[in-house]
Amino acid sequence: MNELERPVLRMFEAYRAAVFAKDVEAFLALYAQDVQVFDLWGEWSYRGLEAWRGMVTDWFGTLGTERVAVGWDDLRTIVAQDVAVAHAFVSYQGLSAEGTELRAMHNRLTWALKQKSGAWKIVHEHTSAPVDFQTSKVILQR
Amino acid sequence: MNELERPVLRMFEAYRAAVFAKDVEAFLALYAQDVQVFDLWGEWSYRGLEAWRGMVTDWFGTLGTERVAVGWDDLRTIVAQDVAVAHAFVSYQGLSAEGTELRAMHNRLTWALKQKSGAWKIVHEHTSAPVDFQTSKVILQR
Repeated sequence: MNELERPVLRMFEAYRAAVFAKDVEAFLALYAQDVQVFDLWGEWSYRGLEAWRGMVTDWFGTLGTERVAVGWDDLRTIVAQDVAVAHAFVSYQGLSAEGTELRAMHNRLTWALKQKSGAWKIVHEHTSAPVDFQTSKVILQR
Repeated sequence: MNELERPVLRMFEAYRAAVFAKDVEAFLALYAQDVQVFDLWGEWSYRGLEAWRGMVTDWFGTLGTERVAVGWDDLRTIVAQDVAVAHAFVSYQGLSAEGTELRAMHNRLTWALKQKSGAWKIVHEHTSAPVDFQTSKVILQR
């Protein structure tokens, strides 16, 4: 990892911490006001932080006593001065209150990040998983 | 559109032309040697131009006398000096040899582009469509 990649890696760490803590505000603090998200589930696009707030509030709200552990691998970054792109395979592991794995899935994630007044924010997120051509069903395990 | 967005728009035009012409070489000329693609169908990732050549050769090869007309809307760009991000909704319209629409689908597309020696290349592509949570099936119409 070089110096330029450090803010991107910090973003992943902060994302993981916010999801594990089910902390809506910490999660949203990673995103720009005018973020546009192409999310895996249900919607073509979320435009703006308030639309995205709805998604994350629902997500964390349905977890009950469960937690979600985020992991990633094959992280690649493309960094210019104030714009960065990151892509990776991300895993979401559903854990019981006792820490037992209940389920797990993989996603592909792309982030576009922008730096403004020294702070990096996600301005675009794209998550997906590949789709089986024969069945039209999503493949959630790598 | 401002001056910085022009190369991105040219990329979309060149992509559309290469797909319509079913021209494998013109298509691959848009991508960097070390491109990594998260494609909608079947594979988690294509790494490098030669892997991507396999996908596009198959795609164009199965079309027979049909053609594919590419369109896009809601194109957004984030441009730094030598790095750019573009995202859009892209439509792929299957046309018979006589120009009749046979089928159509929408995708969400994200590109990361890099400029090297004056030429812009796609270094990362991510295409997907949202997945219905109940059925696990991909939604291909907006």
